[in-house]
Amino acid sequence: VNGTGGNTSARATAQLGTRAPARLVIASNRGPVERRAGPGGRVDVHRGSGGLVAVLGSALAAAGGVWVAAAITGADAQRAGELARTGRLDQVRLPEGPVRLRMLHLDPVVYRGYYRAISTELLWFLHHQMFDLTRQPVMDATLRAEWGRYRAANAAFARGCAEEVAPGGTVLLQDYHLALAPRQLRRLRPDARSAHFTMVPWADPGYFAVLPDDLARNLIDGMLGADMVCFLVPRWADAFLACCAGLGYPVDAPRRIVRDGDGRDVAVRCFPVGVDPDELRARAGAADVAAHKDALRRTLDGRKLVLRVDRMEPSKNVLRGLAGFAELLERDPVRRGRVVHLVLAYSSRGDLAPYRAYAADVEASVRRINARFGRPGWQPVLLETGNDYGRGLAAMAVADVLVVNPVRDGMNLVAKEGPVVSERDLALVLSTQAGAADDLSGGALLVDPFDVTSLADAIAIGLDLPPAERAARLRRLRAGAGALPPRRWLDAALAELDRSMRE
Amino acid sequence: VNGTGGNTSARATAQLGTRAPARLVIASNRGPVERRAGPGGRVDVHRGSGGLVAVLGSALAAAGGVWVAAAITGADAQRAGELARTGRLDQVRLPEGPVRLRMLHLDPVVYRGYYRAISTELLWFLHHQMFDLTRQPVMDATLRAEWGRYRAANAAFARGCAEEVAPGGTVLLQDYHLALAPRQLRRLRPDARSAHFTMVPWADPGYFAVLPDDLARNLIDGMLGADMVCFLVPRWADAFLACCAGLGYPVDAPRRIVRDGDGRDVAVRCFPVGVDPDELRARAGAADVAAHKDALRRTLDGRKLVLRVDRMEPSKNVLRGLAGFAELLERDPVRRGRVVHLVLAYSSRGDLAPYRAYAADVEASVRRINARFGRPGWQPVLLETGNDYGRGLAAMAVADVLVVNPVRDGMNLVAKEGPVVSERDLALVLSTQAGAADDLSGGALLVDPFDVTSLADAIAIGLDLPPAERAARLRRLRAGAGALPPRRWLDAALAELDRSMRE
Repeated sequence: VNGTGGNTSARATAQLGTRAPARLVIASNRGPVERRAGPGGRVDVHRGSGGLVAVLGSALAAAGGVWVAAAITGADAQRAGELARTGRLDQVRLPEGPVRLRMLHLDPVVYRGYYRAISTELLWFLHHQMFDLTRQPVMDATLRAEWGRYRAANAAFARGCAEEVAPGGTVLLQDYHLALAPRQLRRLRPDARSAHFTMVPWADPGYFAVLPDDLARNLIDGMLGADMVCFLVPRWADAFLACCAGLGYPVDAPRRIVRDGDGRDVAVRCFPVGVDPDELRARAGAADVAAHKDALRRTLDGRKLVLRVDRMEPSKNVLRGLAGFAELLERDPVRRGRVVHLVLAYSSRGDLAPYRAYAADVEASVRRINARFGRPGWQPVLLETGNDYGRGLAAMAVADVLVVNPVRDGMNLVAKEGPVVSERDLALVLSTQAGAADDLSGGALLVDPFDVTSLADAIAIGLDLPPAERAARLRRLRAGAGALPPRRWLDAALAELDRSMRE
Repeated sequence: VNGTGGNTSARATAQLGTRAPARLVIASNRGPVERRAGPGGRVDVHRGSGGLVAVLGSALAAAGGVWVAAAITGADAQRAGELARTGRLDQVRLPEGPVRLRMLHLDPVVYRGYYRAISTELLWFLHHQMFDLTRQPVMDATLRAEWGRYRAANAAFARGCAEEVAPGGTVLLQDYHLALAPRQLRRLRPDARSAHFTMVPWADPGYFAVLPDDLARNLIDGMLGADMVCFLVPRWADAFLACCAGLGYPVDAPRRIVRDGDGRDVAVRCFPVGVDPDELRARAGAADVAAHKDALRRTLDGRKLVLRVDRMEPSKNVLRGLAGFAELLERDPVRRGRVVHLVLAYSSRGDLAPYRAYAADVEASVRRINARFGRPGWQPVLLETGNDYGRGLAAMAVADVLVVNPVRDGMNLVAKEGPVVSERDLALVLSTQAGAADDLSGGALLVDPFDVTSLADAIAIGLDLPPAERAARLRRLRAGAGALPPRRWLDAALAELDRSMRE
């Protein structure tokens, strides 16, 4: 999903919760809070970062359910050990209400194989089509051992869910990290109903074929263990169905149904999650955002603002974004000195060499553009790599053009946040390869993410759009952005699960 | 196509040829000969390298046609200038007979844009799916200017063909270098019949979408200017048809027909070119091959030989080939000291940074494997990067296992040459992603090119295959390899062109 990251600095509190079976269980790699050891041995409980937590947190609080998640920090792991001995759960108090939390302490070698080697370096790269296929992936004995760790971690999640869910209760399993858990859970608890949600894209069938046949079957069979398999937009659901068909599963494409190896019909559904406009505007009205807006207006000094807000993630296409801005300055000298490109690209996965190399290339590109076009009093590109949600909202509020040009993106919530908080009727330049393009095509200026020339065109159009058309486009963007806010997204998914189970 | 490269050292002779219109014209970037300035100002005429020349040379000689090709070397360009002034053609005497040659002298900037920027760095990478999509391609103003040069070079080829072909004559346009020329030729000479041949793979539709819409349409429309569009095997033809359908062209997939923008029906056909067993065995009987065989047998000293013969080309998957051999030695220590992996990977496109990096990584991998497993008297991997066709044939003759594991390959003639010249009933380990897998699946040990573990399995099976099964598989491989030798390949294409024009 990937919004601007939620607020990672908020504190939460925790106490012991009861072990009563839950009608609703959510499982995801990262839970709603994480513990961090502070000074003097004190342990603080922080809300976890990431768009997924924001989407699910309030809904689970309302249902009084249990969240099953991995222990991420050392303090998490310590707490998980204590709880395992007492047989109790964590009860964390979020702004939205209390949530019970089952933390899984995984062996570090297992966790690393599951999280980094398979979830990130294999599956994230696969679904975002990020491999240099002449070199990666290398499906060797080492990677197969990591796949075994991925299976073991998924089994731990499945056991955790099986132990917490009430008879006939519902389990919602989140994302590519937990693709095998639905099948494992079904074996343990055939009475539970379950849905699996993929919050990233799904690879095209031709690209999916880089997975060896046995691992591909393992992955698809794992997901088809759920009663409902969910994607963000139809294109990813259709890519999944095509991959199933390619492996020989009977697929009813028009009704989006796959028959699994046991002869069960599994529904494949789409729920295009959006943002909650009221909540977002409330956050954008806070004092830190106001201060950031003032500072940014002083920096701009009357110049127009072309903005991007992303993680520093190769699939976000920051480099081609910079190239598009440079092409605009090159061919249209009258714009020089009149526009600033602010790049908020907060550091991400710095432990992975390709991410470090990408960040270094972004910095080099910014230096080149500033050296080529900059002059006293005007720096064409400003790059900020620190994560500050309030600053991101402030920049969206005052931006004239918001550039969201990912190579491939499950949804992209920045494209939905920007129009909601805009105070200057921003124009949205949006990649055709973002899931959000399905919801926002009526208002966005769509661009092919590989086509830098078209991006330069679109930024120019966005800067020059007449006020009436800006306003009309913004109305359509806001309607699309708020069409399915997180709470309704989950309600819709649960209602559809009910419906498809009755059939 | 990419065989082991033909014989680049053979001399040819040239004289002036007449300008009479030709019933058959072949156009390809590289012609049947190239001129090189020798010592003392002497200019030698050499047979060009590359599988394509070998495939077409003899056929054209028999037809008395004209070959239209680019001037590659400085000496070529000088000769092209002389001929332009006299209004005559080159007449080159190949072993197969005399061939008239129209050499096109292209402006160096145009040639570089057409050949390197577009043909190699864009289209070769595209069809072999070699991009790191987070970084390449960058469709900016510079690349669009190069596309203009590609169009200009194609137009020069189209004009050359239009000037040489007799009324109602036939023009065969070769490969991804000349994708726009068929349409340009049709405008100049609607009376001529034409076929375009793609000798590389074709990108999957999802991957093809990295081309911007206007360039994608330009490319497909250019090819559909021919009366017949030809591929090596059905999978590439079907990928092309899917790309056409994706752009909105009416496609009759079962009959493999596309309707172009003018309402013309264009036939899409497959001609899976093979090798000529008699010619190949004659070459393999020469003295240089015998000497290389003797030397290699002394080196092997009774050990088994696992061989690969390739250009040093990232799509050939040399790195994963080495990883597979290493995995075999790692898990099966009894094989250490009993087998040698000879890697003939002759240098290619050393002017491109990714190719240099790939070659360096291959060398590093070889060093690592030899350091890990080598011992006095046994070096596990031998790497040779010089191009020597005779040595390649000799190695194929004495190999026990031939590894051909490309990530993606139009056909791969090495996989067809090896079985023909084998003296030890070699086992062929063959990638499912090589076009040759369609013709050789009955005898080859097929492997997923990304799956190093399966490659190690297949090499082990290949080494251990019982004599009777080796012999049975080799018979099937030879039948597949020789099913459509070059001469019959061209005859089949010309007959099909006749047939489809009558319909």
